[in-house]
Amino acid sequence: MTYQAINLQNKLSLFNNHWSPKNIAAMNDYLFKVVKVKGDFVWHDHPDTDEVFLVLEGSLRIDFRDGAVTLNEGEMFVVPKGVEHKPYAQDEVKMLLIEPKGTANTGSAGGERTAPEDDWV
Amino acid sequence: MTYQAINLQNKLSLFNNHWSPKNIAAMNDYLFKVVKVKGDFVWHDHPDTDEVFLVLEGSLRIDFRDGAVTLNEGEMFVVPKGVEHKPYAQDEVKMLLIEPKGTANTGSAGGERTAPEDDWV
Repeated sequence: MTYQAINLQNKLSLFNNHWSPKNIAAMNDYLFKVVKVKGDFVWHDHPDTDEVFLVLEGSLRIDFRDGAVTLNEGEMFVVPKGVEHKPYAQDEVKMLLIEPKGTANTGSAGGERTAPEDDWV
Repeated sequence: MTYQAINLQNKLSLFNNHWSPKNIAAMNDYLFKVVKVKGDFVWHDHPDTDEVFLVLEGSLRIDFRDGAVTLNEGEMFVVPKGVEHKPYAQDEVKMLLIEPKGTANTGSAGGERTAPEDDWV
């Protein structure tokens, strides 16, 4: 049987829109998503789950109500459940997100920037 | 408050032994582990969970009973639960593993190559 690796850069090359995560793999009840982001996102939290950010290219700042963290290429961060955060990228950032199925990118904030949930590349 | 990114290469620089995954982060009930591997591992499966491999450096082959997949830098693969597999690295490979807490590196095979579970760097 032929098995196929998932190449993160190949997957990222298949789309250009920002702030719209694309599913690339499932592990149990979790999804792996690649996303390109630039500029400011909305403040939100995920009341029921932690969320992992892993930066593949660029420099991402995640603002919290009481501080911030900057992730460069090859760096990850776990945003704890229930903690309000706002990602910000001065220049385009490519990254991997890992979170349970059913987790919306805007969390409990909702609104017009909520991305479709079942968007695979 | 000061938040700190987790730098994967920094974490990998803190140890040199092979086939002994080190925890670097927790997300809900899952652990993120970095590991260096070289040579052959043992055939095993994880009867209760999928397992994610993400190669950071080098080239890893995962053998299955009916085939194989090769992962190069920036490539990932989800080994489905219950599927027997044997990782192999001709030269040293650095990678990230993601799996539920309580998942042994040797799965249901056990044996002398079973790594300690609560090993953080």
